Amino acid sequence: MSSEPAAVGVVSVGDELMAGAHPDLNAPYLASRMAEFGRRVERVIVVGDDEEHIASAVDALAARCGLIFVSGGLGPTLDDVTRHGVARAVQRPLEECPAAIEEIEGWFTRAGRVMLENNRRQALMPVGATRVPNGFGTAPGFRCEHPQGAVILVLPGPPRELQGVFDAEVEPWLAEHRPDELHRARASAAFVDLPESTFAEAAGAWLERGANPLVGVTVKDGILTTRAVATAATPGQAAAMARERVDSLRALFPERYLAERVDDLGAFVGGELQRLGVSFSLAESCTGGLVAASLTGAPGVSEVFARSFVTYANEAKRSELGVPSKVLEEHGAVSEACARAMALGALERSGAEVAVSVTGIAGPGGGTDEKPVGLVWFGIASRDPGGGAPLIEAEERRWPPLGRARVRRWAANRALAHLLRLARAR
Amino acid sequence: MSSEPAAVGVVSVGDELMAGAHPDLNAPYLASRMAEFGRRVERVIVVGDDEEHIASAVDALAARCGLIFVSGGLGPTLDDVTRHGVARAVQRPLEECPAAIEEIEGWFTRAGRVMLENNRRQALMPVGATRVPNGFGTAPGFRCEHPQGAVILVLPGPPRELQGVFDAEVEPWLAEHRPDELHRARASAAFVDLPESTFAEAAGAWLERGANPLVGVTVKDGILTTRAVATAATPGQAAAMARERVDSLRALFPERYLAERVDDLGAFVGGELQRLGVSFSLAESCTGGLVAASLTGAPGVSEVFARSFVTYANEAKRSELGVPSKVLEEHGAVSEACARAMALGALERSGAEVAVSVTGIAGPGGGTDEKPVGLVWFGIASRDPGGGAPLIEAEERRWPPLGRARVRRWAANRALAHLLRLARAR
Repeated sequence: MSSEPAAVGVVSVGDELMAGAHPDLNAPYLASRMAEFGRRVERVIVVGDDEEHIASAVDALAARCGLIFVSGGLGPTLDDVTRHGVARAVQRPLEECPAAIEEIEGWFTRAGRVMLENNRRQALMPVGATRVPNGFGTAPGFRCEHPQGAVILVLPGPPRELQGVFDAEVEPWLAEHRPDELHRARASAAFVDLPESTFAEAAGAWLERGANPLVGVTVKDGILTTRAVATAATPGQAAAMARERVDSLRALFPERYLAERVDDLGAFVGGELQRLGVSFSLAESCTGGLVAASLTGAPGVSEVFARSFVTYANEAKRSELGVPSKVLEEHGAVSEACARAMALGALERSGAEVAVSVTGIAGPGGGTDEKPVGLVWFGIASRDPGGGAPLIEAEERRWPPLGRARVRRWAANRALAHLLRLARAR
Repeated sequence: MSSEPAAVGVVSVGDELMAGAHPDLNAPYLASRMAEFGRRVERVIVVGDDEEHIASAVDALAARCGLIFVSGGLGPTLDDVTRHGVARAVQRPLEECPAAIEEIEGWFTRAGRVMLENNRRQALMPVGATRVPNGFGTAPGFRCEHPQGAVILVLPGPPRELQGVFDAEVEPWLAEHRPDELHRARASAAFVDLPESTFAEAAGAWLERGANPLVGVTVKDGILTTRAVATAATPGQAAAMARERVDSLRALFPERYLAERVDDLGAFVGGELQRLGVSFSLAESCTGGLVAASLTGAPGVSEVFARSFVTYANEAKRSELGVPSKVLEEHGAVSEACARAMALGALERSGAEVAVSVTGIAGPGGGTDEKPVGLVWFGIASRDPGGGAPLIEAEERRWPPLGRARVRRWAANRALAHLLRLARAR
């Protein structure tokens, strides 16, 4: 079997990975980044800190792949033997790289410490290798070639360091060493409250394997992110194609669009409320503080967030938010009338411009035929800029009873979406 | 190279793993479970849904290992080809397993649906294989033997299903097929507010490789869990040894002990407060609702949790909790006096038996030399059972400024630990 220039292999090294302490995050990261360059990770091998195992894993991949990433095991201690394993695979002795010694010494100097003798190990590389600087830790990486022709890129194991080195050193190198001489560019858009199935139905024609731009979707923590990777003869063409495709997808759901990229929905919405200067308050029952906790993930949100209320008991809804006893007796706490009264109470008690309330049945107990687990009412109140009576809407959602944590999370995300909509409308 | 009976290999299959959509969680799970049986996962290979790649990965591991797990790619669609890849590796044709057909039909009947023709694919196994029932999904697994002697266990890919099948089917099989004829047992203990370094210092003598019992530690979401795995000639001896070791570790930190195993600190503390019947309230500033949100992860906690307060602004601390203006002016919101007044206010406003307040500087901004980012004050109030004035304590913590999210999470976990201590003391 001879190696495929475009195929990529990954060797992840670490005893901690073999002990089950945590999953290997480097291989998925490298796989998703390689897709941007039109290259596919074909095989990942995970081994412990063992010279023979590392060498044989590199050899196995060299028979199949044109590019091999090796991550981890570059530390200063005796059980870090990745340098030795790779040297054995490429059949070259190790030698100390003077530039790497300087890099490591600089790292210690900046930290106000003295380099230990142990750390000299971190400057070892197979003869003929090229250093790959690491601006994020003490372990430089290197690049070398396997006798069977594959290029081997050896990178540090901590994901923060590997990702930093990838951006700073590997990406520019990859851009220059494209197997097909084409340029790639990516663009993205993040949405809230958009189920993957709804997106796929509307965007269906674009979700094709081998399309250009290639469109992908990920859903995480209530955020749907779509990414387009375009391939073209020039960087400018590729960027324009990717941008155009993402803009057309964004145009399908203008109200649910958040930003190009959002990692934390609560912090993003909190930041938007602060940026737009819209003060808000919350009245939470079934979410029990989740919405407030999410929003306060944003630094500086205190400028627009004075207070909110977690009112679990009916008595608390009465005394803290002024929900009339009659509403609770006639309609119950999970009802349109109660959601409206809670939102109005939060608005009036706090003096904020907008307020959202959440009251529902998160389960597992407490559901009835009429009000099943998964039923959630939202109250959405905003002050009339003209000085009239507050405007109050309500919304009912019925989620499948897929566990207390999920119903609470969905309800909290929906409340965040309401807040964002209110703030943007002002 | 011939296979080592005790060495274990894992093949994780799935295009989604090669696309970087998410990390492989099955290999770490299998590695940590195998350690309980004194067996070591030596190599993990991750491949996409490709028959040749799966077969060659199994062959590569069969040369090194006595036991091979293959997970994923057992679904009903045409791109699920793990059965075909394994059949190719063991050089046997596939045939339909009647018991598996029955199992799949039963699954659909219970769900009130009709089995699709596609799902018949899920009953295919290499000739001579033994079915491994799956009580958690529609894809049965199987066990077969490689021509080089390794036993191959093929399991479903979704982690929930794989873990369920492991407990129900694989664990009993492994207990009977031990390479060394020894029995193993495990015991565990979970602690709150216990840094790994503090634990290691106190427990140092036991944290040895190759010790019996073998002691390991994991830290996740504020919970430190220690596990002991003992090896002995009889199951009873092993169980007693593991229990004794864990009990001795538990005795080092009696106040921080939670339970044998805790997955979610907030839900656990909420459950304990409910079980002990201690009503509580909260006054949160820098945690912004995190403590309330964590506690309400426990179903039924509404019985002892009527209300709590998220008071970000000074004005809210005054009006909602009755913090005196003088306290805020003279000491500021992040101070012992304010933390005490907030806890007292939450206690009195709610009528609860105990209340905890949190006020601090989560960052990244807002720190000063005197009050740096990471400084958090807690107020801890409890009603005097004798009817006297409430008892109020305060605590100061200074965490390293490692990011807003971490400071908030640490502060919330500490507040949970205070609540648990108060409830257990009543």
